Amino acid sequence: MTRPGALFLSEIRGQPHALARLLEHDAEYEAVGAEIARRAPAAIRLVGHGSSDAAASYGVYAFGVLGGLTAMRDSISLTVYYEADLDVSKSVVIALSQSGRTQDVVEYVARMRDRGAFTVAITNDPRSALAVAAEATLSLLAGPERSVAASKTYMNQLASLALLAGGAAGKARKIADGLRRVAEQMAEMLDPLALRAGEIAPAFTYVERMFVIGRGFELATAREVALKLTETCRIAAEPLTATDLAHGPVAAIEALFPVWAIASHDETLAAVLEAAARARAAGATLVASGSAAAKIADAAFALPVPRPSRPAFAPLLSVVAGQLFAAALARAKGLDADRPEQLTKVTLAQ
Amino acid sequence: MTRPGALFLSEIRGQPHALARLLEHDAEYEAVGAEIARRAPAAIRLVGHGSSDAAASYGVYAFGVLGGLTAMRDSISLTVYYEADLDVSKSVVIALSQSGRTQDVVEYVARMRDRGAFTVAITNDPRSALAVAAEATLSLLAGPERSVAASKTYMNQLASLALLAGGAAGKARKIADGLRRVAEQMAEMLDPLALRAGEIAPAFTYVERMFVIGRGFELATAREVALKLTETCRIAAEPLTATDLAHGPVAAIEALFPVWAIASHDETLAAVLEAAARARAAGATLVASGSAAAKIADAAFALPVPRPSRPAFAPLLSVVAGQLFAAALARAKGLDADRPEQLTKVTLAQ
Repeated sequence: MTRPGALFLSEIRGQPHALARLLEHDAEYEAVGAEIARRAPAAIRLVGHGSSDAAASYGVYAFGVLGGLTAMRDSISLTVYYEADLDVSKSVVIALSQSGRTQDVVEYVARMRDRGAFTVAITNDPRSALAVAAEATLSLLAGPERSVAASKTYMNQLASLALLAGGAAGKARKIADGLRRVAEQMAEMLDPLALRAGEIAPAFTYVERMFVIGRGFELATAREVALKLTETCRIAAEPLTATDLAHGPVAAIEALFPVWAIASHDETLAAVLEAAARARAAGATLVASGSAAAKIADAAFALPVPRPSRPAFAPLLSVVAGQLFAAALARAKGLDADRPEQLTKVTLAQ
Repeated sequence: MTRPGALFLSEIRGQPHALARLLEHDAEYEAVGAEIARRAPAAIRLVGHGSSDAAASYGVYAFGVLGGLTAMRDSISLTVYYEADLDVSKSVVIALSQSGRTQDVVEYVARMRDRGAFTVAITNDPRSALAVAAEATLSLLAGPERSVAASKTYMNQLASLALLAGGAAGKARKIADGLRRVAEQMAEMLDPLALRAGEIAPAFTYVERMFVIGRGFELATAREVALKLTETCRIAAEPLTATDLAHGPVAAIEALFPVWAIASHDETLAAVLEAAARARAAGATLVASGSAAAKIADAAFALPVPRPSRPAFAPLLSVVAGQLFAAALARAKGLDADRPEQLTKVTLAQ
């Protein structure tokens, strides 16, 4: 029996290694990326649940910014439940599932393939039902993930999508080289960041709700950090774009209602800073994260990460701050991040 | 000076009338719907913030189920901030904004139009900047909305999207006739539903967080009800699909953490019932809503609505239960739903 949360923490720390292992197989991603480009898809349909759905948010920006391609988080229920009569012959489907066993994702892929879409599975289990259902399968190569709360599989999903988008744009090698440097930055930042997260987290022991804001590439991070806080720390953490906040939720903020803001050096930075300032004006305690954390005025706490070579890589570093914070807070609250109540590793529910 | 919340309540009650007024102009929606079909779009890109974004969720299902067309909630920041080089020449853009003055939505439409997309504005102000920016403008005809918390403009956004999708599918008249019956059902249900909401709401005075679950068409309702609870009642209410719940957030549920479940008679009902049962097993107090509310086992409270002639119409009735509940709860908490703190009617923020 391991110490509660030990698996989660060890897997967070194993991410630079997991990422480096994936990057040894960059040529496989390059080839599928080239095939996607060859088909000139009208739409790239991304599907997944939980952390995989957060990764899908990243895919929208990776394909859009790196590849100039339209990608969307598709509705599974539109196809699986309503059986909508969509023309998907010019679509590419990318299905994300750590286990490859999520039933409605497998069913969705089977139907899309029948209807003529080019289907790609990205999974940690290349012999899973999802891998069998899809035309092309790419392995996450994250190694066994034993904590219920995902970390390294999410990390490698982000890298997979960046590699695929890079492959579709004919710049796979550049992206792979950039990601290798990200793995190095991640390895270097882990110790000091874990220390800082451990210092900060106990102050949040009695927090019951939070907002997590990000925009653009970092919307994925906001969604994944909120999910980690929810499942491992039992905080009702809601992810919001910087703009969502102004359109309603800011009214719910009050003093000592913490807002986690992810500020990275990219085109959306000004919008994030403005949203953070607005949350602070409404009385929120701010936690500043991301490579531009220092630019958030009046933050009570900061968990900055290094600046990567491209904005597209920022989410791979930003999310680690949230993972480490969640691990430290779960421990402070006496919760077991490895085995949250009510959850199992493989969710088979529809 | 009106009594706090009086405007919100009066506008909720005005929805059958607002809907009926929109339906007098169904031919305009039919014509634009036919134009959308003529273009055989590769993708319909829906954009909006806040309630308009919740309505966009409805559009994904309306176009998919009624029209067999791929619609997506598009990323504004991909185009406005990152300036992604997307081919949108085969896209239709539908921009939703009550005021027609939301800056980044206007900017998004201008850029999409420059790039060759067919752009449609749906707004309550046909002389707004958004209306000028778009190629086609459709008026919501909801009448002036004076409460900051939206209700009748959201209602007419749903109806507009149903009419457009119906027009694209060559069945505009059938959809319009069906919606006329919905307006009648809504008028009949208002008094008893308001009474029931007023009886239930005070029990939630000290609730600080909730989940709101829906799936398919009713995902829009989950998002809109969560937004109403957040902005008018200061509850951190998070919308989730029935499946999202199982992938993490169920771990945060505890006894007396209410979950609002929207169960309607459609293809997703079994998934919603399963999610509700799971939330209940984790200790949540259930509020059952929707036309199939009675099918949710062990619900502590119920706010059922009538069953409409098509599943596609269900969200127009289901949302009213949430609006009335939010109005009653805001009053019980001594909050002014007409003028929530930190919010203004027109959000100009990026």
